[in-house]
Amino acid sequence: MTDKISYSDFSKLDLRVGKILSAEDHPDADKLLVLKVDLNEKEPRTIVAGLKGHYEKPKLTNKKAIFVANLAPIKLRGIESNGMILAAESNNKKITLLMPDQETETGSKIK
Amino acid sequence: MTDKISYSDFSKLDLRVGKILSAEDHPDADKLLVLKVDLNEKEPRTIVAGLKGHYEKPKLTNKKAIFVANLAPIKLRGIESNGMILAAESNNKKITLLMPDQETETGSKIK
Repeated sequence: MTDKISYSDFSKLDLRVGKILSAEDHPDADKLLVLKVDLNEKEPRTIVAGLKGHYEKPKLTNKKAIFVANLAPIKLRGIESNGMILAAESNNKKITLLMPDQETETGSKIK
Repeated sequence: MTDKISYSDFSKLDLRVGKILSAEDHPDADKLLVLKVDLNEKEPRTIVAGLKGHYEKPKLTNKKAIFVANLAPIKLRGIESNGMILAAESNNKKITLLMPDQETETGSKIK
C-alpha cells in the first residue's frame, strides 16, 4: 500500500497533455519506442516509452496522451528520455494509454 | 516552472483507473460535485470534484477516469473527499477529464 500524500506532493508533478508526433523503434531495446512529443514548447521532446508490443507505431502518431513533463532526464539504453508517458497496467499486464476525454490543447496542465 | 523530479517522487502517487458510480451536487458548494467512485476496493469512495458546470451529472455515471487514490482525506465544504479526479485545464479554463484509451479494469494502476 502506498503512503498517503498531500496535495503539495501531487503538485510537484508537472503532468501535461502532449501530442505524439512520431514513434520509432529504439535501436538497442526490444520493448522500447522512441517518441517525439509536442508539449507546446519550443522544441518537441524525445521520450522513451515501453510501448512496443502494446501499440502499433502508426497508431501512436498524432495521438494525444498524458506525460510527466518534469521528470529528470534519464538515459534508457543510450537514448536520453525527457519525460514519461502515463499508462494504466491491468492485472493481466495489458498496457493502456491515458487520453483526454474531449479535444483539448496540447500542453494543457493536469490538475 | 516546476522543479525536476525523480521517478521515486512520481511513484509516491497512487494513480488508478476508477469508475464513477454516481455524481450528485454538493449541498453547500456551487462548483463541486460529490462522486461515488469504484476503485476496486471493498467500498466505493466519496470524492469531491470541481466539475459542476463542466460535466453533466448523468454523463459522469459509469464513466472511467483517473484518480489520485492515496491523497490524504480532506474536508471540502463539510464533505470528506478521499482522493482526487485528474483533469486537464486548457488556457481558456476548459476542464477535460482523463480516461483510458481502451477498455481497462477498474483499479488498474497508472505507471
